Amino acid sequence: MKAIVFDHELKFVEDYPKPRPSEGEALVRIYLAGICRTDIEITKGYLGFKGIIGHEFVGVVEKINSNDRRLSGKRVVGGINRGCGACDFCLTGLKNHCPNGKTLGIVNKDGAMAEYITLPVENLIEAPPDIADEEAVFTEPLAAAFEITRQVHVKPTDKILVIGDGKLGLLISLVLRLINAEITIAGKHEPKLRIVEKHGIEAINIRELHTEKRYDIVVDAAGAVEGFETAMRLVKPGGTIVMKSTVSEKRAVGLTLLVVNEITVVGSRCGPFEPALAALSAGLINVRPFITGVFGFDRAKEAFDRAVDRDSLKVIIDFRNI
Amino acid sequence: MKAIVFDHELKFVEDYPKPRPSEGEALVRIYLAGICRTDIEITKGYLGFKGIIGHEFVGVVEKINSNDRRLSGKRVVGGINRGCGACDFCLTGLKNHCPNGKTLGIVNKDGAMAEYITLPVENLIEAPPDIADEEAVFTEPLAAAFEITRQVHVKPTDKILVIGDGKLGLLISLVLRLINAEITIAGKHEPKLRIVEKHGIEAINIRELHTEKRYDIVVDAAGAVEGFETAMRLVKPGGTIVMKSTVSEKRAVGLTLLVVNEITVVGSRCGPFEPALAALSAGLINVRPFITGVFGFDRAKEAFDRAVDRDSLKVIIDFRNI
Repeated sequence: MKAIVFDHELKFVEDYPKPRPSEGEALVRIYLAGICRTDIEITKGYLGFKGIIGHEFVGVVEKINSNDRRLSGKRVVGGINRGCGACDFCLTGLKNHCPNGKTLGIVNKDGAMAEYITLPVENLIEAPPDIADEEAVFTEPLAAAFEITRQVHVKPTDKILVIGDGKLGLLISLVLRLINAEITIAGKHEPKLRIVEKHGIEAINIRELHTEKRYDIVVDAAGAVEGFETAMRLVKPGGTIVMKSTVSEKRAVGLTLLVVNEITVVGSRCGPFEPALAALSAGLINVRPFITGVFGFDRAKEAFDRAVDRDSLKVIIDFRNI
Repeated sequence: MKAIVFDHELKFVEDYPKPRPSEGEALVRIYLAGICRTDIEITKGYLGFKGIIGHEFVGVVEKINSNDRRLSGKRVVGGINRGCGACDFCLTGLKNHCPNGKTLGIVNKDGAMAEYITLPVENLIEAPPDIADEEAVFTEPLAAAFEITRQVHVKPTDKILVIGDGKLGLLISLVLRLINAEITIAGKHEPKLRIVEKHGIEAINIRELHTEKRYDIVVDAAGAVEGFETAMRLVKPGGTIVMKSTVSEKRAVGLTLLVVNEITVVGSRCGPFEPALAALSAGLINVRPFITGVFGFDRAKEAFDRAVDRDSLKVIIDFRNI
């Protein structure tokens, strides 16, 4: 099968072996796969991953190696973590954090930029028919935005700041806007900020962030080590910082301020798919302005070049017409 | 009046001017004042404070400069923060974090190690008669322990670790024990650990903390910069770290782990007095084993020497019989 493989460099392979679903898994024929910032990081050596990259997808279930056949033939999206099923974490509902776990296209498991993937049946969820493939492929990053509302009590009266106008920052601002009147997003890219400004979100250049201790909740989706310090400066005493940025660099942080000002810092990663699909299905979140381009496998190299552009948002690889 | 003053060095003053309560304040005749770790830090230059030190006290209301005279003649303890009353923080319930605020014996306000203090009437709360002076003086640090239960949903099924066997660490372990079956405290001082071990708390030497990712909640009350790193190593994915240590030193911290493991870090400082007094009154928390000694003003120098001893817990200065 055709697949995009990272092994010291990106390779566009025509004859990668088709995977077989192991016990409890489904075989999914991929329609679309999105390029995520994490994928770009992996091509720079992040986590030392080798194999098929990609973890944002929509596809159709072609085969199921399980007694639970309810999703047979259905169009699905899916959670990317597979636990070992036997450790203390897996047995106490922390499968996503299993130390022996696999993560689609990120840790020890071939990913979604291919004609086929396998995933545990329990990871899959049907995409409602009123969501286009091009929208459904946003389910995973949109779920990561909804994760914030699962972890933190976001009140309709909170003043909220999102730092970072990348895809995740923009999606987060749209999700929080659903339950909150007063969202500010701060970034560096005027055209990206304009997309969410239409939805009543205050969009400002990050250089304009002068006022200190102003926000009840600050979400750091800047993807840069400075994000945390900016957040600490801007959050109110008693407020909450949500950390979405994974940056490998360590930085000297004064934690005393965190105690004195009683700040809560919440690390936030993958999220629940159901509210993401529901919001897409109801038209509450419009992801179409985020699509920079859809490229066939034959133009996948061009797609990756485009994805690293400063002005790009979501670049999608199309495996439908192969 | 007699007072213990820090001004480059500790001074035991006999003729300090007696304070006058300003509008809305009460004049409190101090009975007992406790020496806190923060007081010791102040004598080393922490926060650049000059004046009467001390913020843990019990005393009696002698005069009230307010229409609200309900506490007249009552024995009281009291909250240590006074806001400006006019800023955004004060007007939105964040008086404790007022940037122009004063904190008894810590920031811009003479403290409790004297015959008299003044505090806003609204800061004071009556100490029930069934609590001895020597117990009531623990209300402030005990409230700081209860603050954790106000900020974090501590479940009876959580595995909890408290790092640090100083006064605060021990009090925290006793408070959390009230709602939880499985508390471990890790410290370096065998005799201190023995005090709480009697209450069914697992007490271990900090060197024995080998297992990683084991605890749902880790409270860092170690008062050392290593506490946070130890907590990060020991907390479960999805778990919570409560930071009680104020350490001035900055330290390089890898925040990516916080995101990947979805850890929540909660800075925690002063707490509610009501549950602390209720627990003392009901005999749920026995603070008497924490009393290292009660010293009269004439032996206050000796009291401070004793307070810095490695084996000391709470040292109290007695202003009753002056």
